[in-house]
Amino acid sequence: MTKDSARPAPEGAESRWERRTEAPLAAASLLFLAAYAVRVLAQGLPPAWRTACLGLALAAWAVFAVDYAVRWRLSGQRLGFVRNHLLDTVVLVLPLLRPLRIVRVYDAVRRRHARPRLALYARVMFYAGLSVLLLGFAGALAVYHQEHAAPDATIRTFGDAVWWTCATLATVGYGDVAPVTPLGRLVAVGLMGCGLALLGAVTGSFSSWLLQVFTREDDVYTPDARVVTRGDDERPPGSSSPGAS
Amino acid sequence: MTKDSARPAPEGAESRWERRTEAPLAAASLLFLAAYAVRVLAQGLPPAWRTACLGLALAAWAVFAVDYAVRWRLSGQRLGFVRNHLLDTVVLVLPLLRPLRIVRVYDAVRRRHARPRLALYARVMFYAGLSVLLLGFAGALAVYHQEHAAPDATIRTFGDAVWWTCATLATVGYGDVAPVTPLGRLVAVGLMGCGLALLGAVTGSFSSWLLQVFTREDDVYTPDARVVTRGDDERPPGSSSPGAS
Amino acid sequence: MTKDSARPAPEGAESRWERRTEAPLAAASLLFLAAYAVRVLAQGLPPAWRTACLGLALAAWAVFAVDYAVRWRLSGQRLGFVRNHLLDTVVLVLPLLRPLRIVRVYDAVRRRHARPRLALYARVMFYAGLSVLLLGFAGALAVYHQEHAAPDATIRTFGDAVWWTCATLATVGYGDVAPVTPLGRLVAVGLMGCGLALLGAVTGSFSSWLLQVFTREDDVYTPDARVVTRGDDERPPGSSSPGAS
Amino acid sequence: MTKDSARPAPEGAESRWERRTEAPLAAASLLFLAAYAVRVLAQGLPPAWRTACLGLALAAWAVFAVDYAVRWRLSGQRLGFVRNHLLDTVVLVLPLLRPLRIVRVYDAVRRRHARPRLALYARVMFYAGLSVLLLGFAGALAVYHQEHAAPDATIRTFGDAVWWTCATLATVGYGDVAPVTPLGRLVAVGLMGCGLALLGAVTGSFSSWLLQVFTREDDVYTPDARVVTRGDDERPPGSSSPGAS
Repeated sequence: MTKDSARPAPEGAESRWERRTEAPLAAASLLFLAAYAVRVLAQGLPPAWRTACLGLALAAWAVFAVDYAVRWRLSGQRLGFVRNHLLDTVVLVLPLLRPLRIVRVYDAVRRRHARPRLALYARVMFYAGLSVLLLGFAGALAVYHQEHAAPDATIRTFGDAVWWTCATLATVGYGDVAPVTPLGRLVAVGLMGCGLALLGAVTGSFSSWLLQVFTREDDVYTPDARVVTRGDDERPPGSSSPGAS
Repeated sequence: MTKDSARPAPEGAESRWERRTEAPLAAASLLFLAAYAVRVLAQGLPPAWRTACLGLALAAWAVFAVDYAVRWRLSGQRLGFVRNHLLDTVVLVLPLLRPLRIVRVYDAVRRRHARPRLALYARVMFYAGLSVLLLGFAGALAVYHQEHAAPDATIRTFGDAVWWTCATLATVGYGDVAPVTPLGRLVAVGLMGCGLALLGAVTGSFSSWLLQVFTREDDVYTPDARVVTRGDDERPPGSSSPGAS
Repeated sequence: MTKDSARPAPEGAESRWERRTEAPLAAASLLFLAAYAVRVLAQGLPPAWRTACLGLALAAWAVFAVDYAVRWRLSGQRLGFVRNHLLDTVVLVLPLLRPLRIVRVYDAVRRRHARPRLALYARVMFYAGLSVLLLGFAGALAVYHQEHAAPDATIRTFGDAVWWTCATLATVGYGDVAPVTPLGRLVAVGLMGCGLALLGAVTGSFSSWLLQVFTREDDVYTPDARVVTRGDDERPPGSSSPGAS
Repeated sequence: MTKDSARPAPEGAESRWERRTEAPLAAASLLFLAAYAVRVLAQGLPPAWRTACLGLALAAWAVFAVDYAVRWRLSGQRLGFVRNHLLDTVVLVLPLLRPLRIVRVYDAVRRRHARPRLALYARVMFYAGLSVLLLGFAGALAVYHQEHAAPDATIRTFGDAVWWTCATLATVGYGDVAPVTPLGRLVAVGLMGCGLALLGAVTGSFSSWLLQVFTREDDVYTPDARVVTRGDDERPPGSSSPGAS
């Protein structure tokens, strides 16, 4: 978004490609996540179905690779492209992170339909929260995939994996279940890194929003009540007042 | 509050309803919490009393449902009402969260009696802290209710549940006691989500308030001492100076 | 401090009393902490010494009680005094928290000797950090006192108690050692509450200070270099540059 | 940096010394870390190699001591030097913390090569993140060194030590592995103290940056689009848009 607007007016080949492939790539992301989830969770499926899931996931991955290659080509850069698109490169190697992109697509769809936009803090809370949910689901899947068959594993069911993910993202970390395999621990460290930063953004925005609401409430009791009318759209959806549940 | 003031002057039927039902609903909320607590904690009560508690809790729930229905009717909306009052819908399904509303009533009562209002940070700390206390009590009750009879439970007494709640809300999470049943873990995840955001607001406000106190102290040593007099009412109650216990 | 300056010029009896008793009370606080520490830690002392420690602690406590009573009298208030001096009342009941006051005395001494004052963030970090140290020491003592003789205790030595306190204040909470007695857990909850808020202030100030240093560094590379000279005193002591250890 | 610029124009002997020794000292820091790591991790090395590593580490330490002595001499101060250079003194005693300094050298090199500088939040995230990585590696080494031979240790491999470090720095603290020796716990407490403050700076900057991106996005939809062009360089490298992975 910001990237395109900062460029000169005639739309470059690269940004046109990005705009057109956005929806198909989001669909491929969800397809990848769904195929991976089915393959990991539904152990009792007939082999043919499991192979189909694997095929779908690989196909989605191939789509990501093609997209990456085309964009590299269009950019006209050499190795600099890899450095300038570091996150894209990471996502190509770890396609489970790809679904985070649909957060962006959701925003674009919402805008096209001219829905009223949420206020600043509500938006940060919403997008960071949605990213945490997707990230947590992908992390729970990956950890379950690595751990459930390890000999001394404590994460034995997908429920355990989800419980572990929640306790980890909240930095509570009971330790009643915890990954024991090297790969499971690697996924865990990645989850901590991404998740804590995102959740910090959620709680930080919540605090700021709460302070804002209380500040505005102060203004209500001053004679000049116009302030309230102006800022009224900054409440998150469904909240009727501060302190109310 | 802010909602009403932003509307045109003639009070709508919905806001009049809200204003009139505020106190009875708060009473019903506390009644629900008390009845639930007695039923969960007092296992040795005669069956008749336990049935009475169940009846009271269900009656309070019915009051919430009627209030929700009336407000839906008055709003003249269809399914949009559910989306616009998402938190109210959640609270209808999880009435244990309802007591959080009394924080708002407390504020209204205080205002009617013309008590001097607390300063901004103190108010955020006070309301968020009170919400955390209520939420923690309801969470400890619910987790104890789900866990204490599970075969491999570590949360066996209500004291364990309270200790677990404190360790969870502070994100310390020792793991010496932890929920093991699916429903207990579901309650735990909800408690983490709500509690961490609220506690983040408390500690954030405390930091901001501390910085403010120290900033003001700086001003005392400048020749212009008027600044101090103006901001003097921003101390939380009972604190006589920064750094003093 | 701020309290006094906000009053009319003729110093009231209450503030004169506060100013004069500040140093003796701080000495009594340290005496109380030392006597309590010796009694708790030095189990092998001859009974006469242990009785002497108990006597000293009780004497210090009596001094606090007298000070509280005199200030109540001087204030001319009735029960309102208890509500307005809530923290003082808490400290009277829990004299282990009293040493936190010496943070304030240290500040006063420093000022009298005309030492250059630290910058805002450094001061918040310093006072909150010192308070956390004192609070942690008192908390470790109290938890060790409650726990070390319990039958199924995991906190068996004072070293365990200090390790547990550090892990708790950092919200890491391994759970390898944790209090098991009701009183020990009560102390733990108090420690979490106070400690997390204070440590949040320390890390928050550190972040703000880091951002400030990096912002100022930006200004160095602009032609107008006067900005640097003005803000130069905001470095904490002993730090020679950002990023340097 | 800021220190030098605040001084009068003719460069003092001390700052000239600091500028000239910066690169050799950074090399010695990395040498110390590498020699220590090889000695701790490569238990199977022939004794001659292990002695060589020890010698290298001691030599590097001697370089630090000489540098400290020379700077003390050049400063013309007595004991005040120790107090004014508290962090330098700490680093002299704990040379494992020394590599944190290369963060500063990296910045200097980058500047000399006239690389475009990162924006404020990205820079704080980058430096604090790099410091956390170095600190975590040194901490994992030291804890592994202290723990792996203890009789009841849970940290038995270097992988365990790294896993424990990650869980500690994220304040998750599962407790499945934890230090048991006094020295190992001392290192752990130091790691918590430094790491949490630095990581708090990382997540805080991330939140602020996210809020900034979302705020700027708001401006895009206003007619005046110049704002975007101006702030466009504040994206961290490799991020193409908010919410995108």
